[in-house]
Amino acid sequence: MLGKSQAKYIQSLGQKKVRDEEGVFVAEGPKIIAELLASTDANIQQLYALHDWIAANRDDCNGVEIIEVDENDLTKISQLATPNKVLALVKKQETPDLSTKGTVSLVLDTIQDPGNLGTIIRIADWFDIKQIICSKDCADMYNPKVVQSTMGSIVRVKILYTDLAPWLEEQNDVFIYAAALEGQNVMAMKKITEGLIIIGNESKGISAEIFEQVDVKITIPRIGNAESLNAAVATGIILSHVV
Amino acid sequence: MLGKSQAKYIQSLGQKKVRDEEGVFVAEGPKIIAELLASTDANIQQLYALHDWIAANRDDCNGVEIIEVDENDLTKISQLATPNKVLALVKKQETPDLSTKGTVSLVLDTIQDPGNLGTIIRIADWFDIKQIICSKDCADMYNPKVVQSTMGSIVRVKILYTDLAPWLEEQNDVFIYAAALEGQNVMAMKKITEGLIIIGNESKGISAEIFEQVDVKITIPRIGNAESLNAAVATGIILSHVV
Repeated sequence: MLGKSQAKYIQSLGQKKVRDEEGVFVAEGPKIIAELLASTDANIQQLYALHDWIAANRDDCNGVEIIEVDENDLTKISQLATPNKVLALVKKQETPDLSTKGTVSLVLDTIQDPGNLGTIIRIADWFDIKQIICSKDCADMYNPKVVQSTMGSIVRVKILYTDLAPWLEEQNDVFIYAAALEGQNVMAMKKITEGLIIIGNESKGISAEIFEQVDVKITIPRIGNAESLNAAVATGIILSHVV
Repeated sequence: MLGKSQAKYIQSLGQKKVRDEEGVFVAEGPKIIAELLASTDANIQQLYALHDWIAANRDDCNGVEIIEVDENDLTKISQLATPNKVLALVKKQETPDLSTKGTVSLVLDTIQDPGNLGTIIRIADWFDIKQIICSKDCADMYNPKVVQSTMGSIVRVKILYTDLAPWLEEQNDVFIYAAALEGQNVMAMKKITEGLIIIGNESKGISAEIFEQVDVKITIPRIGNAESLNAAVATGIILSHVV
């Protein structure tokens, strides 16, 4: 049974302000919840699930509190157009303490589309990039659409939100790469084992004060006529060539 | 001025059935409209635009009929959350007559997400893939979300909807490649100058009767832990390595 105040509370987690105050976000659907339950990094506080899901998954829930709800209740608390059996309240990551030495990190400048941000987190996880640094005007990583499109990768990638320009100035012992319209052909580049790779906003690109700090510009050659590539697709292509 | 019946007509083009009957689709926003106006392949029937847009772009409209509307009218006919200055009614492509010899074509099996389909069309255009063959259960290429996410590439890529399995059986003089979980490492593959590259549904992959016909399976090696890659991202990565 779902109380009215609890339903309201879960709904309110759709807002960034409330998520920040509570330190909690919402994840939904059997696929993502299975990933979260299997991960040692995820701290699930409660599960709200349909009877059938509970019957099939109770043994994998590691003692997490489970509240059985019906379809009607699930619709009330879900952020999805089609609610999908189970919803979890999950504790947000601590602000990570990142070191950029000896590893490849992704840096996102103004990636505002939640679907793109989520997809980029998933790509990073695929290519074993363990940390992402986001400018403060990127979409919120705990936005429900971001969480959904990471497909569970959100618990495996450390993400820091910061003022990018001053933060980059401090990273003077690693190389700074960036996706750009004119630069080295990504297909001819050597593998990168240490450094930062900056991906910019689709329409505006990388902001000027950040672009100044870039050591190596990387370009995906255009063979046909499309005006640009989606930021997540560009990230996937670059990582597949250099990591 | 926008008449009530015309507004209703444009709204009704949000439905596939009406688009099919009328042979017309809707495209929106200055960026896409500029691409359509610049393309010799696009057949724009009418433009509905705000005063400012018309003042700035009248000379590029090649004699297409322009109907001036106010913000209020534009909101009524727009399929976007935030209407964007101009909307066009565009004639659909004729069903293309494709030849697969001597060229690389993309084949999509059950790509149902409109954003993914649109992004794939844009990627194809970037890599100069001129034709895409879609299974009948792919999203409709003229769905407003598909059109938006192609960013104008929709007018440059020929797209055929067909029963894939029998169609593939007829293509016995070209190689059939497919993205798969286990296959040749895409990073070690030679360039492809002729053939079909099949991309399957994200969760279900490529259907069995189609998979049987594949000559070469292509895999994007996973280095990290993500369970899968988005279908559009996988398409971008594969094309960037083999085209």
